[in-house]
Amino acid sequence: MSDCIFCKIIDGEIPSSKVYEDEHVYAFLDISQVTKGHTLVIPKTHKKDLHELTPEIAANLFSVVPKIANAIRDTYSLKGVNLLNNNGEFAGQSVFHYHLHILPRHGEEDGFKPVWEVHTDDYSNDERNEIATAIAAKIN
Amino acid sequence: MSDCIFCKIIDGEIPSSKVYEDEHVYAFLDISQVTKGHTLVIPKTHKKDLHELTPEIAANLFSVVPKIANAIRDTYSLKGVNLLNNNGEFAGQSVFHYHLHILPRHGEEDGFKPVWEVHTDDYSNDERNEIATAIAAKIN
Repeated sequence: MSDCIFCKIIDGEIPSSKVYEDEHVYAFLDISQVTKGHTLVIPKTHKKDLHELTPEIAANLFSVVPKIANAIRDTYSLKGVNLLNNNGEFAGQSVFHYHLHILPRHGEEDGFKPVWEVHTDDYSNDERNEIATAIAAKIN
Repeated sequence: MSDCIFCKIIDGEIPSSKVYEDEHVYAFLDISQVTKGHTLVIPKTHKKDLHELTPEIAANLFSVVPKIANAIRDTYSLKGVNLLNNNGEFAGQSVFHYHLHILPRHGEEDGFKPVWEVHTDDYSNDERNEIATAIAAKIN
């Protein structure tokens, strides 16, 4: 898409710190390194978000994520890796070209922490089954 | 793996609120619904974490994530969707069978918030290029 910053990065119109590229996928360092080695993996085809990804685009993208994550792990001595993907402004998306964040975790003070409330007792088993059935009914 | 709780869920030894299943993938509601509709997508093959996923397992898994996310979106009126994957205890992993969290976002008080520090000025362009080159050199 002509006004998309990530399409311009793929095309080389805007410079980036490239980590990986193949026919379908481009990976580069986020300009804001939330943690050192923080990498974005994007499809070369312009898709706004997760909801727009075809099965093929999704498969091609994720098939290379383990090898990129392994390369980051082999470059640094990591305590872990998080993947994060934000879809919709409310969920933290700011560039509307699908991108998966690879966040290498170096230690306590590394700039990323998901706040994650435990809600084990919010629903009974029956209520969870009802939710699952409602969602499953919407899958083609 | 015989003592893996997620393998037991796949085998039906432990009940779960199933959302989706195919030859390669199983998806079910997290027993702790961080947000309503919070779903885990797992490979049927036991793999500890992202680093152990083969390209094929990764591709099969992620190819169905958009349609599951779309079904959740079509079930509720969502403000967004986050994907989160934690690898390693430090990164928040507690079950050591790879699982990708789909977190539907319903509104401000929905129980999930990634703390996300902006680090745009931590590195110069040259420094980012050095990081990218070091990682790229480790990719097969």
